[in-house]
Amino acid sequence: MDSDLYDNLKLELRRGSLVLAVLASLRNEEYGYTLRQSLADFGIAIDQSALYPMLRRLESQGLLHSKWREEDNRNKRFYRISRAGEEILSQLVEEWRQMNTSLQRILK
Amino acid sequence: MDSDLYDNLKLELRRGSLVLAVLASLRNEEYGYTLRQSLADFGIAIDQSALYPMLRRLESQGLLHSKWREEDNRNKRFYRISRAGEEILSQLVEEWRQMNTSLQRILK
Repeated sequence: MDSDLYDNLKLELRRGSLVLAVLASLRNEEYGYTLRQSLADFGIAIDQSALYPMLRRLESQGLLHSKWREEDNRNKRFYRISRAGEEILSQLVEEWRQMNTSLQRILK
Repeated sequence: MDSDLYDNLKLELRRGSLVLAVLASLRNEEYGYTLRQSLADFGIAIDQSALYPMLRRLESQGLLHSKWREEDNRNKRFYRISRAGEEILSQLVEEWRQMNTSLQRILK
């Protein structure tokens, strides 16, 4: 099997779901490190090199807010979903559920 | 809400799943028209302008086979998943199940 091809298809499959996972996780405020840990606890491994650009992108799209705050004597950038992010999240979740229902039926 | 942004995120969410849906549907041979009908019956609407390029792409990647055959006095191009496609499909399905399990827990 062509492993590059598989990796690309897997990436394509994960990409949209990762946005969902990140937005949903940030209904509670987190900074990068704890967000990554919390995704990992849910079984979603994501590299820092993929997570941080995604956070910046989602913030620039207005779906997240961030603010710097000192914690344990270090400045950390905390992220939380915005109002617009919540609206988009709930529509994406609806889309995701419909797609899942369809796929489950096809895969039977 | 920014509807272009939502449309893009929705597209990103659907893209990977569509490949899964198409590969799984083509465990039975179909030509474009009946494939599109069968996806629609399962609740997945896809434009011809998106479906046909995807079929050609998946064939060029070796995941589908196609052959022309006459049916009802018309030449039709029938598609079926290849052996390599079946292998990749089963791995993608596994990936999809894991991602779903994670997302379901996060969304609770």
